[in-house]
Amino acid sequence: MNSNQFIFRKLEESDYHKNYLQLLSQLTQVGNITPVDFSKILGKIQSQIWVFEDSQANKIVASASIFLEQKIIHCGGIVAHLEDVVVDEAYRGNQLGQKLIANIVEKAQESGAYKIIADCKPELLSFYSKNGFEKRGEQIAIYFNH
Amino acid sequence: MNSNQFIFRKLEESDYHKNYLQLLSQLTQVGNITPVDFSKILGKIQSQIWVFEDSQANKIVASASIFLEQKIIHCGGIVAHLEDVVVDEAYRGNQLGQKLIANIVEKAQESGAYKIIADCKPELLSFYSKNGFEKRGEQIAIYFNH
Repeated sequence: MNSNQFIFRKLEESDYHKNYLQLLSQLTQVGNITPVDFSKILGKIQSQIWVFEDSQANKIVASASIFLEQKIIHCGGIVAHLEDVVVDEAYRGNQLGQKLIANIVEKAQESGAYKIIADCKPELLSFYSKNGFEKRGEQIAIYFNH
Repeated sequence: MNSNQFIFRKLEESDYHKNYLQLLSQLTQVGNITPVDFSKILGKIQSQIWVFEDSQANKIVASASIFLEQKIIHCGGIVAHLEDVVVDEAYRGNQLGQKLIANIVEKAQESGAYKIIADCKPELLSFYSKNGFEKRGEQIAIYFNH
């Protein structure tokens, strides 16, 4: 692998056919999403979704999203939320994750956000700290049974 | 205080004149926001901002927001993010915070979200646990110097 083979760009609808859902399924449950469903979902998404494509394999091999939350506090400031970070298992150990996060942090800063925040498992704190993230608090959740 | 005096509703532009920014300033830095600025900021906000008004004092005394993030994962599921929770210092110890969170969780569930997530300081874990929140991970952040 050489670093030129990886192209950083926004997610495109045609990435459905470039292994994108298989990549996401390494993160969590994806479900059965047809190309028509995928197009509809992308139409509703407000986040920016960024990917690395392996241009030789014609495959999406890493992905992360940021959405920009308009606040009232901080003089109507913007907070960037980093979500859904995943690197294909076969491509780990190449610094691709670090490059992905570095690029995303740059995009967040360019957007004018006053901070970027994320949630992670404890074992990933050292990974994120390489890109300048520091622990700030606890993530809490309620899962609903619909 | 009796519980009927508190009205749960969405934030309105006129709440600028009902102590709303003074309430937010108990959470963090707000900055100098004029009524015109406030109106512009509200025009850009995608979150739902919910408040408790003290109808006797004509004052907003608690606030929290949720925004609904459209995902690709979980079959195009929705995650509700709970943000900017604050109860006026003079009104703490009345279960108003618990009622606020309970109402917001209900709104998130009604919206069809598969989960509601939030970040908090370690000392607030027991407060949130009363409304069913459980610790899931670590919150991390980078603050930008613009």
